[in-house]
Amino acid sequence: MASASTPFRTLGPEARMAAFPLGGIGTGNVSLGSRGEFRDWEISNHPDKGAWMPFTFFAVRVEPDGGPAVTRVLESRQPPPYEGDSGEHIGKVAGLPRLAHSTAVGEYPIMTIDFHDDDVPVEIRLTAYTPLVPLDADDSGIPGAVLRYTVHNPQQVPVRVSIAGSMTNPLGICGRNMFQFPEWDGAPSVELRSDGDVHGLWFTTGLADDDLRYGTATLATRGDVTATPMWPVDFWQDGVQLFWDAFSSTGRLEPAEAFTLEDAPRERLPKQRTGSLCVEREIGPGESADVEFVLAWHTPNRPKAWLGMAGLADTHADQVVQNQYATRYADAWAVTRDLVERREQLEASTVDFHAALYGSTLPPEVVDAVTATLVVARSTTCFRIADGTPEGRFAGWEGSFDHQGSCEGTCTHVWNYAQTLAHLFPSLERNARRREFLHETLEDGRMRFRSNSIFDAEPHEFHAAVDGQMGTIVRLYREWRFSGDDEFLRETWPAAQRALQYAFDFWDADKDGVLDSQQHNTYDIEFYGPNSLANSMFLAALAAATRLAEHLGDQEAADRYRAAFETGSAKVDELLWGGEYYVQRIDDVDAHRYQYGLGCLSDQLLGQTLAHVAGLGYVLPEDHVRSAVQAVHRHNMRHGFDDYASVQRTYALADDAGLVLCTWPEGGRPRIPFVYSDEVWSGIEYQVATHLIYEGLVDEGLEIVRAVRARHDGVRRNPWNEAECGNHYARSMASWGALLALTGQQYDASTGTLVVAPRAEAFLDGVARFPVTTGTGWGVVTVEGGAARLEVLGGAIDAELVLEPASPTGTQQNRSTQEEGTR
Amino acid sequence: MASASTPFRTLGPEARMAAFPLGGIGTGNVSLGSRGEFRDWEISNHPDKGAWMPFTFFAVRVEPDGGPAVTRVLESRQPPPYEGDSGEHIGKVAGLPRLAHSTAVGEYPIMTIDFHDDDVPVEIRLTAYTPLVPLDADDSGIPGAVLRYTVHNPQQVPVRVSIAGSMTNPLGICGRNMFQFPEWDGAPSVELRSDGDVHGLWFTTGLADDDLRYGTATLATRGDVTATPMWPVDFWQDGVQLFWDAFSSTGRLEPAEAFTLEDAPRERLPKQRTGSLCVEREIGPGESADVEFVLAWHTPNRPKAWLGMAGLADTHADQVVQNQYATRYADAWAVTRDLVERREQLEASTVDFHAALYGSTLPPEVVDAVTATLVVARSTTCFRIADGTPEGRFAGWEGSFDHQGSCEGTCTHVWNYAQTLAHLFPSLERNARRREFLHETLEDGRMRFRSNSIFDAEPHEFHAAVDGQMGTIVRLYREWRFSGDDEFLRETWPAAQRALQYAFDFWDADKDGVLDSQQHNTYDIEFYGPNSLANSMFLAALAAATRLAEHLGDQEAADRYRAAFETGSAKVDELLWGGEYYVQRIDDVDAHRYQYGLGCLSDQLLGQTLAHVAGLGYVLPEDHVRSAVQAVHRHNMRHGFDDYASVQRTYALADDAGLVLCTWPEGGRPRIPFVYSDEVWSGIEYQVATHLIYEGLVDEGLEIVRAVRARHDGVRRNPWNEAECGNHYARSMASWGALLALTGQQYDASTGTLVVAPRAEAFLDGVARFPVTTGTGWGVVTVEGGAARLEVLGGAIDAELVLEPASPTGTQQNRSTQEEGTR
Repeated sequence: MASASTPFRTLGPEARMAAFPLGGIGTGNVSLGSRGEFRDWEISNHPDKGAWMPFTFFAVRVEPDGGPAVTRVLESRQPPPYEGDSGEHIGKVAGLPRLAHSTAVGEYPIMTIDFHDDDVPVEIRLTAYTPLVPLDADDSGIPGAVLRYTVHNPQQVPVRVSIAGSMTNPLGICGRNMFQFPEWDGAPSVELRSDGDVHGLWFTTGLADDDLRYGTATLATRGDVTATPMWPVDFWQDGVQLFWDAFSSTGRLEPAEAFTLEDAPRERLPKQRTGSLCVEREIGPGESADVEFVLAWHTPNRPKAWLGMAGLADTHADQVVQNQYATRYADAWAVTRDLVERREQLEASTVDFHAALYGSTLPPEVVDAVTATLVVARSTTCFRIADGTPEGRFAGWEGSFDHQGSCEGTCTHVWNYAQTLAHLFPSLERNARRREFLHETLEDGRMRFRSNSIFDAEPHEFHAAVDGQMGTIVRLYREWRFSGDDEFLRETWPAAQRALQYAFDFWDADKDGVLDSQQHNTYDIEFYGPNSLANSMFLAALAAATRLAEHLGDQEAADRYRAAFETGSAKVDELLWGGEYYVQRIDDVDAHRYQYGLGCLSDQLLGQTLAHVAGLGYVLPEDHVRSAVQAVHRHNMRHGFDDYASVQRTYALADDAGLVLCTWPEGGRPRIPFVYSDEVWSGIEYQVATHLIYEGLVDEGLEIVRAVRARHDGVRRNPWNEAECGNHYARSMASWGALLALTGQQYDASTGTLVVAPRAEAFLDGVARFPVTTGTGWGVVTVEGGAARLEVLGGAIDAELVLEPASPTGTQQNRSTQEEGTR
Repeated sequence: MASASTPFRTLGPEARMAAFPLGGIGTGNVSLGSRGEFRDWEISNHPDKGAWMPFTFFAVRVEPDGGPAVTRVLESRQPPPYEGDSGEHIGKVAGLPRLAHSTAVGEYPIMTIDFHDDDVPVEIRLTAYTPLVPLDADDSGIPGAVLRYTVHNPQQVPVRVSIAGSMTNPLGICGRNMFQFPEWDGAPSVELRSDGDVHGLWFTTGLADDDLRYGTATLATRGDVTATPMWPVDFWQDGVQLFWDAFSSTGRLEPAEAFTLEDAPRERLPKQRTGSLCVEREIGPGESADVEFVLAWHTPNRPKAWLGMAGLADTHADQVVQNQYATRYADAWAVTRDLVERREQLEASTVDFHAALYGSTLPPEVVDAVTATLVVARSTTCFRIADGTPEGRFAGWEGSFDHQGSCEGTCTHVWNYAQTLAHLFPSLERNARRREFLHETLEDGRMRFRSNSIFDAEPHEFHAAVDGQMGTIVRLYREWRFSGDDEFLRETWPAAQRALQYAFDFWDADKDGVLDSQQHNTYDIEFYGPNSLANSMFLAALAAATRLAEHLGDQEAADRYRAAFETGSAKVDELLWGGEYYVQRIDDVDAHRYQYGLGCLSDQLLGQTLAHVAGLGYVLPEDHVRSAVQAVHRHNMRHGFDDYASVQRTYALADDAGLVLCTWPEGGRPRIPFVYSDEVWSGIEYQVATHLIYEGLVDEGLEIVRAVRARHDGVRRNPWNEAECGNHYARSMASWGALLALTGQQYDASTGTLVVAPRAEAFLDGVARFPVTTGTGWGVVTVEGGAARLEVLGGAIDAELVLEPASPTGTQQNRSTQEEGTR
């Protein structure tokens, strides 16, 4: 097992794929590369991987008392390749000297980068983050970031240090020209704006405030500055020469002498607008100083339509909706002021959250996994639109293609797997459940698994998705239990009952309590005949509905659901148990394409995983469940893919390790199995790892988690982007389940209990210390010497803390559920 | 000095940037990566770097007698990164097993790749090339390639080997969808076409034959085949599964059973059309077999306009012109037949040319440089359009941006530097000279430096370019002397005289014989005042014109030009000699932006380089010339760029070495020097290297050549792409000058002499053996024991071979010219 000091996310300049996203929930991102470079400017309400901003970089000049000055771009040197159709682009200033080396430590949500250069007589560290406050989606949804350069002077003499940030207007960009320079709509501008002791570059667009590309942005700091508010605007790039010459020679900046230096200005000058802001510090021997910048943006307008590829009607595509953050901030200057004024408080919460994970004794690979995939919630995959309520409407793509969203509608069968939001920002998941039950569930119980009502648009008519629809009922239970929000439950319960009834009516053709008809699912095809993916979900939904009906006092319904659960569970086991794992029963596996038949499906017990997470206990016999998930690990986990033959999309290759979606250990592979069967999806890997840990197979579970994260090492792939059909794929938020399983935390607002049951063997140093969240507060639990104590770090937790022994059969609570379920 | 065995272009799989272009002059390209993968499909009359074709790969199945079969994609395994917004794309079949390792040896025009894999019991080599026949632009302009897999069986038992080529229709592509799959215009199709013993996949578009995207393509072989002429066409990619299952299990293919396997075919099926062609061989113990494919394409139509970015009018953009190759071939099948039927003859010439260089004793870095940049002539940078003459019209961009041409019009000031075509395919350069003098030179002598007459379009009105215009006169002399084509000379001479007169009339403001007014030049800005870039070009043009006037019997003009040369040379030297090198004289270097003043300009004696190449002798005092070019090397050559500060485009960084365009060793750098002054351009590096070698500074010259080529090592940059403002930049063809300078070859058709004067110290093994070309034939000269002998390998050379000692002052012929010039 990895030790506490395992540098899971320590990255050198060779980690070219690394892009650490700054930005909050529903704000878009700017990412930070491992060398300190800013990359992937995705602040304009759509994904845009690779979008870089010319002439946007920080530089430092260091002049020791009596010594020569040295000036460097505040990035480490880039490794090859250096290919480009015009060399390295002028806008990347690749020809300016950089710092010799860097060490980035990306512990989401905080990135630090230490720069090293023997020729630079100070030590420089960049600390960058966007505030993250558990349970507070607003304070975790600020469109901006704090960038703090800390400079330490180890010399015997004082040094004069200047740090300058240069930035090109990133707003209103409508394309790139053949030289790869952006092209801008409107009349982009930059000027120096001052407001008390806050001074910043202030970027505007000159566009109407309902224009899709309208927005504002700032790069600001507190205290004295010098500046070149706007570089001269020429056909040639003379501004950067003047900037560098001035900064490197004096460490101070001055306003440019003229708008353009052209002898005979062209008719059509470029719209590029770049400015520089410079902060100077005198640092005594042995002392340190902070130079802190705030980067903020405010691009309020989104099209009122998904504009996606799953075929939803874009009914109101000509209209504009606002991001929810626009209801909190008038413009980027307001964001800046807020970030400057509440910086200490916001940073304290962010650091607390960081410490709760990175200071825990959880296996580092699990900390790495849950934080790296938490990024999804704050990536372009998720957004919140204003609708007149403070909360707005939360929505998500499945993921983000490089330049547009992938698969719209907060897809129920993909979001099924995600546990992160439910446990960190539960209000957003309740928001999604309301949407699904109140706006997307028809009278006959069919739930549209892609929401178009988010945009008040015409509904998406397609098959219902059995796994998504059943999972939504389990998740309703999860959300209600975590929040204790009875109003939320009463509001959604009628539709939830209809959605459950739909399974009896439409998916159980022979009415034997086992789903068996055409079952559309997360593999984007239909399974035919009984299979344990659909049926474990159905059983979990029945278990959840039993509890909910009981809570609501509808004993008739509770009894009915319980009876169906008991009958179904027994029949499913009888029908689908294959001796080692559960299978699909179908007479001719090739009668329909895309089945799996006797295959060992990694997702065969997805419903059981969700039931464990929700504290619903076993939905199938415990010994069979454990055997099955063990078989999944045994057969589907691969170490190395060089000899593997898959014609599908490739998420693991070479000496990667990973869990494939299905194997046929005893033969019976269909001629054309389901279209993703040979792939490796981190979201499924995490749900299987979660399940393995719940079953006490901790080593096996952690092995899978390590495999996922080793694939995302910064050289092979970006550590903060687990892609499936799109980057920042929602399914990858299944990772939080591993944390839940390891800690055995179960918060039940209805009973006022917070159970913890840590898998002691997985924790470092013999002490289990880990974060816990509830619907009302969060903190850190420490289990030591047979006792558990809770330190509340945010909100309030009014619950009895119960320490239970971890056991292969789940917590005592789970056990009692099982007893209940089988009595 | 590098040894003969220096593996200059031996590349492993880590050389991810390597892309070896197949294709002929004016045909576009498909490139071969170092792992054997096909990449950069640029066959549709515009550059398209990165364009890859889904499901287009070769695979091998090997079954030893009595042993297990093994099947592999015929590529070696890819190194990281593995990033993609949906993992590695399904169309790249990255999940299929590949060969463990490969060693590519790219010796343009021939690429060989040896594949290694302990699990595969045979040795496999791919040999790939497009025929290259010196002096024959047609046979060097075939739109296709030969791909030969040679399989050797080192086992004691026979092996059955199958090789299958799969290919998706690469024609008619009009975009890429969000999944990165191509989208097609028309009705793309693929079928198996047989014609005698030639069988191939035959790709058509279903478009009208005057459609810009119309075309045909083939992947063919001779002899028995099995095939899946078309994979089933489904929404999901089932075809690849069926292909792989059939091929890997039997090593044979069958026609697909149905057009689509969909249970309920969608209304709109994809237009992707993929087929596979399979060849089977039984190979005895110790024996080898060849499996040879021909890839051919025929995309005849180009827009009748540059559609570039330099502002030329696209007068006839709505019309279509044909590629010259379309006058030779009716379609891709005709190309295939020609390549199959003349394969031996074409391959023999290609191998002769390859051996003339790679079997020479020239320094390997020079062989590498001249062949790697020869690629430009056969890249998307150059093309030939049909105009009713057999030759058509030759034209070139400056270079190729990733997806479109860069800077149109066979720009005189960029093409100035290129020596390759003039010496390998001289008819194309004469074609260009005719264009410049007959169609682009006005009555007052101003020459449009970008040709729009190539498309019968409205002319480009802009400044004249002093370096380009003067250089064109030198090149007229070069072309005439090399060809002995008096008709060509008489045709162009009147315009050449006007072009020369223009310098007196418009660039010599004070009429003192030294050019000094506003001088637009290859740095895309204007120099003011006397400078040796413009004036060395002027002097070289005067020297050339003197010779040409004498040849034509116009003694008056000859005397006038000679007098101007002598006066000018003396005055330029007096005015511009700075003690170590030549400078620009200008009162206030900052009065105009973009000057260089007292800087040491790498191009300061460009005119002298061109004069040496053309055998025109010295244009300025020999000692000053040598001192100046030595100063260029001394001051402008850098080893390492980590501490360099340039805000311009970056062609050299990190531990690259390279020659910068200008330095200011004694100060005096303008506030804003010319916009490329701090850059590193391989075209200028080669012209300086050429000049250094001519001056006897061989080590210095070779050092520069090695620096350029080391930057293009396959990891940093593509060995076969020296970019400047665009890939495959025309200026890089200056490299052939280094070969000319090292060998001292001077062919003068008017005197019937072929002088060689090799720099013995530069050659390997004490024997100078090198290729020579003339306007009528080419061959290899060997100088050994004080005697030279010529082996003619193509065409005929009716000339006296004269061996002269190399000397720092150039050949005897040069020396006599100098005497003539200074008497």
